[in-house]
Amino acid sequence: MIPIPQSIIEQLDKFFKPRAVAVVGVSYHPEKIGHIIFKSLLESQYCGKIYPVNPKGGDIIGHMAYPSILDCPDDTELAVITIAAKYTPQVIEQCGKKGVRNIVIVSGGFKEVGNEELESQIVEIARQNGIRIIGPNCIGIYDAITKVETFFQSHDRMVRPSYNAKTKISFLTQSGTYGASFLELLDEDGLGVSKFVSYGNKADVNETDMLQYLAEDQDTKVIAIYLEAIGRGEGRTFFEVAKEVTRKKPVVIYKTGTTTEGTTAAKSHTGHLSSQAAVYNGVFKQTGILSIRNFDELLAVSKALAFQPLPKGNRCAFVSNGIGPVIAMIDEAVKNKLEIAKLQELTREHLREKFPPFFVIENPVDVTGSATSKDYEIAIEAFLNDPNVDIVMPWFVFQDTPLDENIVNVLDEMNSRTQKPILIGAHGGPYTKRMSKIIQGKGIPVFDQAGKVIAAASALYRYSQYLSR
Amino acid sequence: MIPIPQSIIEQLDKFFKPRAVAVVGVSYHPEKIGHIIFKSLLESQYCGKIYPVNPKGGDIIGHMAYPSILDCPDDTELAVITIAAKYTPQVIEQCGKKGVRNIVIVSGGFKEVGNEELESQIVEIARQNGIRIIGPNCIGIYDAITKVETFFQSHDRMVRPSYNAKTKISFLTQSGTYGASFLELLDEDGLGVSKFVSYGNKADVNETDMLQYLAEDQDTKVIAIYLEAIGRGEGRTFFEVAKEVTRKKPVVIYKTGTTTEGTTAAKSHTGHLSSQAAVYNGVFKQTGILSIRNFDELLAVSKALAFQPLPKGNRCAFVSNGIGPVIAMIDEAVKNKLEIAKLQELTREHLREKFPPFFVIENPVDVTGSATSKDYEIAIEAFLNDPNVDIVMPWFVFQDTPLDENIVNVLDEMNSRTQKPILIGAHGGPYTKRMSKIIQGKGIPVFDQAGKVIAAASALYRYSQYLSR
Repeated sequence: MIPIPQSIIEQLDKFFKPRAVAVVGVSYHPEKIGHIIFKSLLESQYCGKIYPVNPKGGDIIGHMAYPSILDCPDDTELAVITIAAKYTPQVIEQCGKKGVRNIVIVSGGFKEVGNEELESQIVEIARQNGIRIIGPNCIGIYDAITKVETFFQSHDRMVRPSYNAKTKISFLTQSGTYGASFLELLDEDGLGVSKFVSYGNKADVNETDMLQYLAEDQDTKVIAIYLEAIGRGEGRTFFEVAKEVTRKKPVVIYKTGTTTEGTTAAKSHTGHLSSQAAVYNGVFKQTGILSIRNFDELLAVSKALAFQPLPKGNRCAFVSNGIGPVIAMIDEAVKNKLEIAKLQELTREHLREKFPPFFVIENPVDVTGSATSKDYEIAIEAFLNDPNVDIVMPWFVFQDTPLDENIVNVLDEMNSRTQKPILIGAHGGPYTKRMSKIIQGKGIPVFDQAGKVIAAASALYRYSQYLSR
Repeated sequence: MIPIPQSIIEQLDKFFKPRAVAVVGVSYHPEKIGHIIFKSLLESQYCGKIYPVNPKGGDIIGHMAYPSILDCPDDTELAVITIAAKYTPQVIEQCGKKGVRNIVIVSGGFKEVGNEELESQIVEIARQNGIRIIGPNCIGIYDAITKVETFFQSHDRMVRPSYNAKTKISFLTQSGTYGASFLELLDEDGLGVSKFVSYGNKADVNETDMLQYLAEDQDTKVIAIYLEAIGRGEGRTFFEVAKEVTRKKPVVIYKTGTTTEGTTAAKSHTGHLSSQAAVYNGVFKQTGILSIRNFDELLAVSKALAFQPLPKGNRCAFVSNGIGPVIAMIDEAVKNKLEIAKLQELTREHLREKFPPFFVIENPVDVTGSATSKDYEIAIEAFLNDPNVDIVMPWFVFQDTPLDENIVNVLDEMNSRTQKPILIGAHGGPYTKRMSKIIQGKGIPVFDQAGKVIAAASALYRYSQYLSR
């Protein structure tokens, strides 16, 4: 592992655990971004102090504004800058004087609109003053434990997920939009989050820094990333660091800008020009980073990694009371280099003995619409005992009324004693969602699309393969 | 158009508008499939009569059971058969005697488990008696207007969508599971449904019959299909019929069994062996059937077709207050042979004049996190006026608090006077879902994933191309 000096870890730590936060550029107008950030931080459960900065001073939502960061109390450890780009150099210099060494710049108007020079200038000033910057052009940070946040998404518009000690997923993103949505999807799916960083143009702190930091973070088990491009000249370091980090923790990445046109759009989004997709794919493969195809799969794979063990091989076994989606899974599995397990003759015999003649004893095992939880139990048990099976994938049609709710206990019990990953599929309305939530609450991931189950299985297998090399 | 005799239409009509339904094989045990079907039909708002058949007679949920279909009143027009496969020939013969000419066979145990002979036998008996069969091995039918249904998915487990005069989507499926889930997803998305047919092994009534029927059905505007395989020897008729139907109404298809392994699984699911994927793709292309890649896209494309006009060309324009997902859309658009519109210089000038300097005036137009509904209005209006733009795709980050809710009126107004399709993207938590629902309620489709917006745009364009040939 490329050693990251303890001092750097300590400094990055301050982004997530500051004693006090100053928000620079808190307007009196409630619809302005600076105002919303200040108000949202007040409404969070962050227990440090919060100082609004406005040159005019006065009272903002019952808090006295400080005319400048220089006037803020000395315990200020994090500054959130929301003023126009051209004024930022001056404020960063003031932060330097004040001894504030952690800055989040939310404002845009830098490299992404061609102001490369201004962006270089703020980095230069930061370096001279021992300051680390997250941003500019971003939505900044969120820590689900300390509840510090820099969001201009108000609480009534965007849910902040809680910390979840079972999943410990952290998320790094160049896009604030994907950031906001990933947080809300994590919450909806009951997964929670640990640390969140949206660094936009990432003028200073980038994925390499954060990977090193999160590799050491005891509250992070899975690292998910949304990436548009690695910064110019950063490729080699990223490569070396990623290779080491993935030995310790799984890293899942969703990369956009895979076409020339997409790359151009990314350039004017966060200011970085992407190399060819093939180059990135090579890097991800060699470093053990799990690359996926779309945003939905980012969530699916993160949750599989958080909940399930890695498989020994790629042989999948399926059972369902409704085979349609299983055919889709099998198509996808084959396209993703997973194998359809050949069940042992012993397994087949056992199932033939236990099941009525109209069940289909193949892989997939079709327990038909009349299946009960007992039928699933028999099939899954058989898969777990069959040495030809590495990954177990039951699909449930919870709408089919013969399937009783004891299935929750069956799965919970199986999951608690198996070293084989169990990945579940089910889609539908309120009842299906409720059943899925209960089962996932037991630590067995449930996916609402055939493609997502296979994306998860494929990632688990690829990661297992990488680690065993 | 291959003429479908009026008498056939009238007979198929009886599946959806029977005066009375007999459920054959209603057990006294509430967990048995026949019992659940009977109970569910009682709980539906179907206003025809419902007769339970059980050889033992007696009282089932307060209804006197008839010992056989022969004992049922003479207004019986539809029989739902839920008894073991081996007893079905006898019941079909009785239906013939009784003059019941529409049968849904829910039971499995036919071709899908190798009982080809039994399946041929029931078709033979049906033909001799002028009977049409839906099934076997299926969940049967649902009509959102008459509320007739044959589901063994109880009402508390599966939602039945209402009829929606704005969308008029009908669904044909070989898989009951995809059927149940599609119904619930249509309901969740507020889209409703018209007619629903799950025909499983489709021993008799198949997609060709139903396409002909739905082409004439005034309650059907969009036909969605889940397909595993066209029956042997049915290919040519399907081809000819599909080619004509797509001239009248859009047909969207989700086909699984695209790999050898998937095909094998499909064979033991609904008894049909699929040809190579390339053959099907050729057929779909030549007949104007819109083939999509996964189940999510089936819903996305159906709803785009239900709500929006067809585009004149494939040139897409994007605007967003959060560009991340737009980059994903652009990547997908390029891969799907859509073009990124080159905005006219006039449009650019206009936008430069109206917008602050930190907005990015390219395609995509980046109105940044500080965008209001007014900014979107300016950009979308400009796209609608620009002859270089065929499809308008705004992505909304509703979480970004500066974006005010007047956006609903802006979109409603634009949508009401444009001939260009508007396809919207947005993903996130409860607030985003609420905003999406309100906007979609106005007839502008909202998609929760970049890939879905592009699948929709691509389908609209392909269909437009096909119709203009």
